[in-house]
Amino acid sequence: MKIGLDILGGDFAPEATVKGAILASKQLSEDQKIVLIGDQAIAKRYIEQAGENPAFFDYVHAPDSIGMGEHPTKAIAQKPDSSISRGFQLLKEGKIDSFASAGNTGAMLVGSVLSVKTIPGVMRPAIATNVPKIKSGFGILLDVGANADCKPEMLPQFGLLGSLFAEHVYGITNPTVGLVNIGEEEEKGNALTLAAYPLMRENGRINFIGNIEGRELFDEKADVMVCDGFVGNVVLKLAESFYVLTRKKGFQDPFFDRFNYEQYGGSPILGVNAPVIIGHGISSPEAIKNMVLLSKTMIESDIIEKIKRAFN
Amino acid sequence: MKIGLDILGGDFAPEATVKGAILASKQLSEDQKIVLIGDQAIAKRYIEQAGENPAFFDYVHAPDSIGMGEHPTKAIAQKPDSSISRGFQLLKEGKIDSFASAGNTGAMLVGSVLSVKTIPGVMRPAIATNVPKIKSGFGILLDVGANADCKPEMLPQFGLLGSLFAEHVYGITNPTVGLVNIGEEEEKGNALTLAAYPLMRENGRINFIGNIEGRELFDEKADVMVCDGFVGNVVLKLAESFYVLTRKKGFQDPFFDRFNYEQYGGSPILGVNAPVIIGHGISSPEAIKNMVLLSKTMIESDIIEKIKRAFN
Repeated sequence: MKIGLDILGGDFAPEATVKGAILASKQLSEDQKIVLIGDQAIAKRYIEQAGENPAFFDYVHAPDSIGMGEHPTKAIAQKPDSSISRGFQLLKEGKIDSFASAGNTGAMLVGSVLSVKTIPGVMRPAIATNVPKIKSGFGILLDVGANADCKPEMLPQFGLLGSLFAEHVYGITNPTVGLVNIGEEEEKGNALTLAAYPLMRENGRINFIGNIEGRELFDEKADVMVCDGFVGNVVLKLAESFYVLTRKKGFQDPFFDRFNYEQYGGSPILGVNAPVIIGHGISSPEAIKNMVLLSKTMIESDIIEKIKRAFN
Repeated sequence: MKIGLDILGGDFAPEATVKGAILASKQLSEDQKIVLIGDQAIAKRYIEQAGENPAFFDYVHAPDSIGMGEHPTKAIAQKPDSSISRGFQLLKEGKIDSFASAGNTGAMLVGSVLSVKTIPGVMRPAIATNVPKIKSGFGILLDVGANADCKPEMLPQFGLLGSLFAEHVYGITNPTVGLVNIGEEEEKGNALTLAAYPLMRENGRINFIGNIEGRELFDEKADVMVCDGFVGNVVLKLAESFYVLTRKKGFQDPFFDRFNYEQYGGSPILGVNAPVIIGHGISSPEAIKNMVLLSKTMIESDIIEKIKRAFN
């Protein structure tokens, strides 16, 4: 198994990324290799400084990096030697089994669609994020930013993508699917959700339980929560700001602690032909470690084959 | 001044509404009368039980009520003797200067548009809610549910409605206006926000400061935050669920305390020809009191005339 990691992505790269890779490596077996993509000399230096053996990792030299503010499509095209471009090249060629980066989200999205491509039958890939549930565990919210505007037909697909991820990666049996909406009743909503509701209800492959409102996202009501990427992105960032505030104010609580993005390892892009994970820009070594471990779990779960079969 | 209050609206009506009216009355001068609309006998009984003088209030008997789950348009049409229908009748006839209810939101919206009508020039009225700011004070978010789907041209109008309310009711000088969006840059967004952005920038009557993301709603960045009613409603309910959680978990903090809907008196419908306020369904006497006091402030501020002039 080869787990690809962009060591130049994220606000605290490459120090945080290399340190995270070292932390992750201690939980991997010998045949599970992390492939460090980025400036090779820097990577080795950090590893030696940490008193670790550089031979434990694989390296692919990519000296260039794509900045957070760069235009995704342009950057991918114009910077073939960037760690993100090189990562997707390797992923496409099968030289790595997954690719993760805490860098430019748009570049990760464009890169994945251009290189490993969208799985046949999937209209548009979606970015999924985990949502802590009040009682315990996590649910999944998607899309949180890949598709600002959605067609109604995309929402049941997001429901299925999320369900497969919930089942095979999170181990949730027969996950429930809810449509994020502004009322409980079927006749509530905007044009998108009104059109999507019957499609979701009639989709025999998801366990659709109806609408869920903004106040119910953390309830047990639905394991998979589906919305367009605009609503999902606003929700994600709003929830994050609450978490940051509770931390700043010194509130300690197991539920709020589960909002900590360091613990869950990033947001997978679901619906492309390989495991691809986007990390939070401010990823710490701990967050990078968990992103590598989530990559491993995604590879082991064979989630991509399961999605391919479901959409075939 | 006649402040209309539906005493049959809300989960804890009529006890909470009448008690709230009593609390409010203690802060009103003699020429500021609360008009209690609903079952007259019940109202008087509660007032006497509280040891207060029933003569301090005006009464309009309306024995029927519109339930929370009822279809707004049907209920308004079929229940002329309901407290909400009667309230709007009085408002239309100028017998009350404002109307507030913690009852069926849809019925309040439909009732206001059918009775006092939309202000000429306003495309669609919007429901505004206040948003606590981390440093201090409040901002305004609109629309939070009147218009699930919006045309781009509606968003600068919401910005102007919110600005006038912020200025004349909240006393914020030259309020800043932000567009709720999924990125800072002008080229980020969905079809609606992409089209609305230039319209807002070019609108000389609002102090537009650009996009604000989900994580920035509580920052000082914008006093008035504009979005479609779908996004606003999801945001409102999500934020509320966070507040409820912090309370359940016993967190005490001045910022989180400012989320308490009891304190701010409900959500005005902006863009109709009279002050109309919708209270939270679970309104306590304290919440009702503040809804009555907000009604008074809206009447005193002459906000409706100011909106009419701005849209003329």
